Amino acid sequence: MSQKAEETLSLDAAFAALVALRATRPLVQNITNYVAMTISANVLLALGASPAMVHAPEESAEFAAISNALVVNIGTLSPPWVEGMRRAIGKMRELGKPWVLDPVGCGATAYRTGIAVELAALGPAVIRGNASEIMSLAGASGAGGKGVDSTDSSDAALDAARALARDTGAVVAVTGETDYVTDGTTLVAITGGHALMPLSTALGCALSATVGAFASVRPPLEATVAAMAVYGAAGAEAGARLTGPGHLPAELLDALHGIDAAAIARNASIRVLAGEAV
Amino acid sequence: MSQKAEETLSLDAAFAALVALRATRPLVQNITNYVAMTISANVLLALGASPAMVHAPEESAEFAAISNALVVNIGTLSPPWVEGMRRAIGKMRELGKPWVLDPVGCGATAYRTGIAVELAALGPAVIRGNASEIMSLAGASGAGGKGVDSTDSSDAALDAARALARDTGAVVAVTGETDYVTDGTTLVAITGGHALMPLSTALGCALSATVGAFASVRPPLEATVAAMAVYGAAGAEAGARLTGPGHLPAELLDALHGIDAAAIARNASIRVLAGEAV
Amino acid sequence: MSQKAEETLSLDAAFAALVALRATRPLVQNITNYVAMTISANVLLALGASPAMVHAPEESAEFAAISNALVVNIGTLSPPWVEGMRRAIGKMRELGKPWVLDPVGCGATAYRTGIAVELAALGPAVIRGNASEIMSLAGASGAGGKGVDSTDSSDAALDAARALARDTGAVVAVTGETDYVTDGTTLVAITGGHALMPLSTALGCALSATVGAFASVRPPLEATVAAMAVYGAAGAEAGARLTGPGHLPAELLDALHGIDAAAIARNASIRVLAGEAV
Repeated sequence: MSQKAEETLSLDAAFAALVALRATRPLVQNITNYVAMTISANVLLALGASPAMVHAPEESAEFAAISNALVVNIGTLSPPWVEGMRRAIGKMRELGKPWVLDPVGCGATAYRTGIAVELAALGPAVIRGNASEIMSLAGASGAGGKGVDSTDSSDAALDAARALARDTGAVVAVTGETDYVTDGTTLVAITGGHALMPLSTALGCALSATVGAFASVRPPLEATVAAMAVYGAAGAEAGARLTGPGHLPAELLDALHGIDAAAIARNASIRVLAGEAV
Repeated sequence: MSQKAEETLSLDAAFAALVALRATRPLVQNITNYVAMTISANVLLALGASPAMVHAPEESAEFAAISNALVVNIGTLSPPWVEGMRRAIGKMRELGKPWVLDPVGCGATAYRTGIAVELAALGPAVIRGNASEIMSLAGASGAGGKGVDSTDSSDAALDAARALARDTGAVVAVTGETDYVTDGTTLVAITGGHALMPLSTALGCALSATVGAFASVRPPLEATVAAMAVYGAAGAEAGARLTGPGHLPAELLDALHGIDAAAIARNASIRVLAGEAV
Repeated sequence: MSQKAEETLSLDAAFAALVALRATRPLVQNITNYVAMTISANVLLALGASPAMVHAPEESAEFAAISNALVVNIGTLSPPWVEGMRRAIGKMRELGKPWVLDPVGCGATAYRTGIAVELAALGPAVIRGNASEIMSLAGASGAGGKGVDSTDSSDAALDAARALARDTGAVVAVTGETDYVTDGTTLVAITGGHALMPLSTALGCALSATVGAFASVRPPLEATVAAMAVYGAAGAEAGARLTGPGHLPAELLDALHGIDAAAIARNASIRVLAGEAV
């Protein structure tokens, strides 16, 4: 693998990206689901970004013009929200700014899958989902990959992720016990996080918001890997202090707010797997 | 009272129902109000269920087809959401799966009361509300019961609850300092909870979500009594650790996540009052 | 300055207003953004008020008829919500009851600014925003004031606040490190709060909800000053116990729930600046 990948896809690079994020305080527009809004906003604030929730078609594009990144999450979608998404995405594309797609629940209903396929074709910088969502989206997009099974591990979705990345041009992240990130060629595995995280709602959605913030200061592959490492390290730190899920959002925010290079190194790992058989 | 009621409406039965819930990890669809979404999702996760928030008419019925239970809460209703409720309910009825109605604020406006009456006639397995809501719904449904008074205690709503249960075929729960559950014949009183609970928003709504999860593994009367006992015990445990309401949601989640038979026995009681004068 | 101002715009008066609020338990209707709903409801409960979130045009006016105060926040606005706002506001005006406007993000898009200008002309008792929002609203309303700059401090917005107050007849509050409140003549500076507060989403929105609760028991100027002092004192208390933003909402709720005259005196200050050059 290239010297460059080793340098830019590393824990040191992740921390440097966080420092850049804190210095620029990017404005991140979120058109996200009702459950994810508060935790997404608070995660962005704890990271050092500036969140905004602006979804209406009447203003979503105008707001996108002043945003540094856009995060689109279809968790609780409905037609007027989808129209707001389309317009904001259109403006980001026009201006060459990054946007992130979180295809929540793709595969669960025809409506949801159809919208996910439509949006995935609109040039997201990054698509982040769990194994089932990514496999469903890859299959429905005609990019290939296997069918959906709710017990799919993130490992099983790697083929689908690579196919989806090649088909859409997006960096694709499959999150689970180990997170995988690929641009269709390079494949990166990131560890971190904590077993309590799936027991607290919308922490995956807030990770997508985090990816958006990093995408405003780094290219998509590097941004996504950095976001996974920083968030995973903060999650590991937070979870280690707890025995139940109740205080996890608050502890995660505190961990993100105070995180430094040493904490990232202690709690996360990045391994570049490009070209290796996995 | 029957031997059967003593066995199935007991703290032991409540814990057995929780064990069954954790084993089956039911998918609970919620069409609920904006304030209740996050805490409902987190309560369901802490219990061991799998929450989903899917409300749009374009997909609510298709999603209901894969859900194990549906919870409909009218707290922040509007016409497109009501249409989503109708379609999801229709699918649950068609497939013989349970759904729970939480008639938040019934009696406060004509629109709200009308929707509550309409939905109550669509065969909910359980209706859960506070005394005023149940009395208002019973009155507006023509089932009988007295007028609304915001100072009504749950005791005062017992006649309305029984009338509403007989009229709709639903199990009706009236929650307050003591919770009452009736199918129109059997009447059960459950204690538990904590004085801080009414100071934390949407904990009643999250209880309705809990009833939905239990209704996927037990018949309605037994499910509702079990949900009240488990939730009440967790609330009592959580409240006892606090002096203010701020951390109550987090502590409630931790209590639900870790609850066992001994904690239920220590913090809740179930008394079957069928046929007794109350 | 008058003897009366010294008496009614003081920490003692703020605590007396809180006592009155707790005694009357006002019903505060909120038509607010999705992010602010839960924390607004919990802040109102912790204060001793009774919150309700009722936004649909089908019922917002009927509900306003039974509310003691209304809070309108345009954070995540869309046309049906704006229609619900208009109808609720119309009913409050008809019945002579107070309503509060929080012009979130005014100036960011033409749609948002237009709605803020429209609503500001409908007789709010109080308008509360940050420096940029107040300056933008004053400018767009033709009331005068400078252009928008995201780095505007609350001090820089004082001219705009006074102009807006004179133009609309509302009390105008500009919140920041120091909060300023004016009715166009009297100007009051309130200190309190904590540096962590801007890192936790929607705490400004929840302050607007707090102003609404106080406006149901005191005239607008006195109510707004009291709300700022009580909320600022609670925020200062809460922040002092923390090193990160994660638990701030919970600690703020506990501080509001337990606050007394001594805690207000320790953690906030009120200075009446009427007629002084500022």
